[in-house]
Amino acid sequence: MNPRVLGIDPGLNVTGYAVLEVSATGPKICEAGVIRGRTRESLAARVNEIFDGVTEVIGSLTPSCMALEELFSHYKRPRTSILMGHARGVICLAAARAGIGVSSYSATRIKKTLTGNGQAAKPQMQRAVARELGLATAPEPHDVADALAVALCHFYTQPDWVAVGRRRA
Amino acid sequence: MNPRVLGIDPGLNVTGYAVLEVSATGPKICEAGVIRGRTRESLAARVNEIFDGVTEVIGSLTPSCMALEELFSHYKRPRTSILMGHARGVICLAAARAGIGVSSYSATRIKKTLTGNGQAAKPQMQRAVARELGLATAPEPHDVADALAVALCHFYTQPDWVAVGRRRA
Repeated sequence: MNPRVLGIDPGLNVTGYAVLEVSATGPKICEAGVIRGRTRESLAARVNEIFDGVTEVIGSLTPSCMALEELFSHYKRPRTSILMGHARGVICLAAARAGIGVSSYSATRIKKTLTGNGQAAKPQMQRAVARELGLATAPEPHDVADALAVALCHFYTQPDWVAVGRRRA
Repeated sequence: MNPRVLGIDPGLNVTGYAVLEVSATGPKICEAGVIRGRTRESLAARVNEIFDGVTEVIGSLTPSCMALEELFSHYKRPRTSILMGHARGVICLAAARAGIGVSSYSATRIKKTLTGNGQAAKPQMQRAVARELGLATAPEPHDVADALAVALCHFYTQPDWVAVGRRRA
């Protein structure tokens, strides 16, 4: 089996995930979707759902690594960041318990890798994700698009993987 | 067995914990200490150690509930708060998986409950913790004192527990 990367966009309410596989025609989507917390439940119940959801994705799709946006990308919105930290903590735990490594990328790096512009706006990013993966329209919801973006960023920063992708040219 | 509360002071490097039991002579320490992360390891490895440590404490000391400082108490230090959020996420997960509830208290409420002053300084809090638990000196390190403080706050806000404690008078 070719290597697979699991990209995650952490959130307490909605966590986006995307598994990409290295193929001779470039990165290929194995599966992408969202893990939704039951928002009325306690924080403990919600992190439990996220942990179970991510563990299930890792178990069924067997990625060899996980890619996440860096810790402090949302530094300017501390309230959101602290909540996101809770989700991110259990997502990293799911990776550790499955024995797969975690790579982090800054928001700027993800944008630059996909569009050439570290300050790219959301629509530009969504178009880039759709183009790279040969999708007719931008993936929805944005949590899935963000998970695909960080997975693509990881893909394009692995020299071996990109070499496989280039065979299509 | 009398009810027990597990107080936790979350941190990625050092997580303080304290288990208090309700007794006829007031709250009694069953065990208190710290869970230390190997700081050179990855974030994923560190949250894994914290999760294992808290799960072990719950398993061996069988508290009926967990008490934590509220989410946004350290709002003014976003960087620390985001890291703390990761630790807090896996600590809540450990509680959820053990089937015990989590109660949160603001820093102000913890200080007011123990000293009568919601703005109490650290030395005043440490003396209050020592006094309430009949300790000759303030508990060290401060992570343990903070875990004891939140556990005591939970203790004193449970009417049934306080009634048991009052029998000593």
